[in-house]
Amino acid sequence: MSENIKICPGYKFVGVASGLKKAAGALDLALLLSDTPAVAAAVFTKNRFPAAPVIYGRKLLAAGRDLRAVLINSGNANACTGRQGEVDVVTVAEFLAAALQLDPQEVFISSTGVIGEPFPVTRVLRGIESLLAELEQQVAVSAALTRAARAIMTTDKAPKVIGIEVETSQGTVTLTGLAKGAGMIHPDMATMLAYLLTDAKIDREIWQAMLQRVVSQSFNRISVDGDMSTNDTVLALANGVSGCSLTNPVDLDLFETALLQVANALARMIVKDGEGATKVVEITVTGAANLADAEKICRTVANSALVKTAFFGQDANWGRIIAAVGYAGVELDSSLVNIDFDQVRVVSGGVRDPRYREEAGAAVLRQAEFSVKIDLQSGEDEFTLLTSDLTHEYVSINADYRS
Amino acid sequence: MSENIKICPGYKFVGVASGLKKAAGALDLALLLSDTPAVAAAVFTKNRFPAAPVIYGRKLLAAGRDLRAVLINSGNANACTGRQGEVDVVTVAEFLAAALQLDPQEVFISSTGVIGEPFPVTRVLRGIESLLAELEQQVAVSAALTRAARAIMTTDKAPKVIGIEVETSQGTVTLTGLAKGAGMIHPDMATMLAYLLTDAKIDREIWQAMLQRVVSQSFNRISVDGDMSTNDTVLALANGVSGCSLTNPVDLDLFETALLQVANALARMIVKDGEGATKVVEITVTGAANLADAEKICRTVANSALVKTAFFGQDANWGRIIAAVGYAGVELDSSLVNIDFDQVRVVSGGVRDPRYREEAGAAVLRQAEFSVKIDLQSGEDEFTLLTSDLTHEYVSINADYRS
Repeated sequence: MSENIKICPGYKFVGVASGLKKAAGALDLALLLSDTPAVAAAVFTKNRFPAAPVIYGRKLLAAGRDLRAVLINSGNANACTGRQGEVDVVTVAEFLAAALQLDPQEVFISSTGVIGEPFPVTRVLRGIESLLAELEQQVAVSAALTRAARAIMTTDKAPKVIGIEVETSQGTVTLTGLAKGAGMIHPDMATMLAYLLTDAKIDREIWQAMLQRVVSQSFNRISVDGDMSTNDTVLALANGVSGCSLTNPVDLDLFETALLQVANALARMIVKDGEGATKVVEITVTGAANLADAEKICRTVANSALVKTAFFGQDANWGRIIAAVGYAGVELDSSLVNIDFDQVRVVSGGVRDPRYREEAGAAVLRQAEFSVKIDLQSGEDEFTLLTSDLTHEYVSINADYRS
Repeated sequence: MSENIKICPGYKFVGVASGLKKAAGALDLALLLSDTPAVAAAVFTKNRFPAAPVIYGRKLLAAGRDLRAVLINSGNANACTGRQGEVDVVTVAEFLAAALQLDPQEVFISSTGVIGEPFPVTRVLRGIESLLAELEQQVAVSAALTRAARAIMTTDKAPKVIGIEVETSQGTVTLTGLAKGAGMIHPDMATMLAYLLTDAKIDREIWQAMLQRVVSQSFNRISVDGDMSTNDTVLALANGVSGCSLTNPVDLDLFETALLQVANALARMIVKDGEGATKVVEITVTGAANLADAEKICRTVANSALVKTAFFGQDANWGRIIAAVGYAGVELDSSLVNIDFDQVRVVSGGVRDPRYREEAGAAVLRQAEFSVKIDLQSGEDEFTLLTSDLTHEYVSINADYRS
C-alpha cells in the first residue's frame, strides 16, 4: 500500500480467509471496527431485489444507531435468498456482536459475490472466529487495511484504498476509503461496496445529506457494463476520535470537498479495474437544454456496447458515438453537435470536421485514459461519466465467473 | 438458397461488386426492380441522426408515389454526412432513374456500413453501370436474389432470404423477404435493412398500417447489443402483378399473418447471425401489471451484458437475470417472481426453487436455442424479445470492424 495513504485513527481493520471463495486461502471476510460508536450514513442500491444485508442495513440506518463494526464477506451475495437469507444476516450480526460485546444494532453487514446461493452461515461464523483471533495479533494497521480491502474483492484485480488528511479550523481530521468494484458497475452503484471512514465528529443529518451529494457526484457517475447489483452499498462512518467537531459552514465545505475527492479516487479505481478494462474514458455532454437530457445522452453513450468495443479496438469510430447520441431519446438538432476526443475536434455541426485527420483521433484513443466531449450547443447543462472499454477479458471473466 | 423459398413474380434482383467494401470482389450494391409501379410502405429508424437515404426515403413515402426500384449499398452508411450526403442520394437516384427510364421519385435508396465517411458517389455510379449490365444477363432469378441479399450484408455471415405463398380467396400471392442485420440490432430496428415484396394488390393506407403492426411484432422485438442505427429501414412493396386484390377482411388477416411469419423468420435469422452470437434466446415476461412494465423488464434483461455473457458461458446464472429484473425500474413484488429456463423451474417466489438442480438449468443453456420465462404473477400482460449472447467474437468484430 502506498505510503501516502493516510489511515484514519480510531479504526481497526482485519481480513481473513474463511473458505467462502473457491481459491484456497483467498481472503474473503473483512472487519472494520471503530474504537467508539460512529455516526453512520449510507446509500444503498435501488435494485428491486435488494440483498438480505441491504434490507438489514436499511433498518439499522433508519433506527439511527451509531455503529461500531462492519463485517463484509465476498464469495456469496446473500441475495435472492428469501427469508432464510434475512435470518442469516441477523445470526451473523448477533454472533459478532456477542463476541465483541456490542449491541447487534451496532453491527453493519455487507455481502458480495454470487447471487441466489444459500448463504454459508456456518463458514462465516467460523470466519468470524478467525477474525477475532487476528484482531488480537499485532498486525501493522496499513497491512491490516490492505488485507481487509483484499477480502472484499470479487473479480477486482487490486485492492482499492485511499486516505487523506483535511485541515479544518478545529484541527486535522483524516478520511480513509476502501472499495470493491469490477463488474456490474453502473451509474446507480451496481455491485459496488465502498466504506468511507473519518475521525471527525459530524451531525447525523448533515453526514447523510453530504454522503448523498457526494455519491451522486462520484459513484453514481461511473459505468462499466450498465448492470446494477442487488448489494451496492456506500457506508460512511464518523467516530469523532479526532475531537474535531465539524459544524461551521467553511469546515463542512472543506470536508465535503475532501470526501468527494476520496469518493472520486475510489470511483476511478473501480472503473480502471472494471472487468477486463484497458481504458478509462471520461464522457462529457455539454450544452444540453437541461440536466436530464445531458445525463440521458451521457449514459447512453457510456453504456453502448458498440462504443465501448470501439474504445477497446482503439478505433476512432465517432460514428458509433453519434449514433448513440441519436438514439438516446432526446430531442436535438443534429447539425449543432460537436465532438472532441481530448483536444482533437472530430465532429463539427454533426459531420466530420474538415480539418480532422483519422490519425489524430487514433492517437488519442491509444492512450490508457482520454476524454470524449459531446457539445450539443443547445443550452447550458452538462453531465460527466467515467466509463471503461468492453474487452475480450470482460467476456472471459463473465462467461466463466461464479466465485 | 433453399428450394423452398418462393420468389415473388414481377421483381428482378441484381447484386454486384463496386469496390465499396475493402475486400476485393465483395458484392456491395443491390438492385430490387419491380416490373410495375409498386405500392410502398415503410418504417424507419427513430435515431435523431437519420442517415441521408432515410431522410430521402421519408420524403418519397410522404409523397405517396409508387416505387419501381430500390438501390441498396453496403460499405458506407451515408450517415452524418450532412448536406453533401443528401445531395449524393439525389445524384444516385437521378442517375439510376435516367438509366432505367424512371422518374427519380420511383427510386428508393438504402445505405449501410460505416458512419461519417463521405459517400463514395463516383464508385456507386460506376457500380450502377455494372448493375445495369448484369440486369441484361440471363442470371437465374434465385441466384440473382441471393446475390442481392449478399450485396446488402455488412458483418452478416449469411444472406437472409425467405419466401412463401399465401392462398387467398382471390388466388395465390407470394411474399418474399430479404434482410441484413448483425451488429447494432435493437428493438427499435438498429442497423437493419429489410425488404418485403409481394405481388398482391393492396391499398396504400392498409399496407402501411399492416407493416407498422408487423414490424412492432417482429423486427422491434429483437435485440443483439442494444444499439440503434442511423439507417434502419423496413420497406414493403406490393406490385399487384398477381392480379389478386386484397380487400376483404379475411384475406387481409390471412395475408397479415403471412407477412408476420416472413418478418419473424427474417428477425430470427438476424438474431441468429448477431455479431458473434452462438445462442438465440427468447425472453418472455408474463404476469405484468401492464404492457409497459412487461416490455421494460424484457428489454432490460435482453440487453444486460452480464446476462448475455452468462448465456455465452452456458452458465445458468439466474442471479444475473433476477438482478436485471430488479433494476429495470419497475415496481414489483420480488417474492412473487418465478423464472423458467425452457420447462425447468429455476426460481419460485423470488428464490431458488427447492427442486431446482444446477445441472438441469445448465442442460437448457447448452442448447443453441432456448427460452427464459419470467413470470411476475402481478397481472395479465406479457412481452417477448429474441436476443443473442455476448461473445468474444462480438468484441473481435467490433473492435476491428470498419468496412
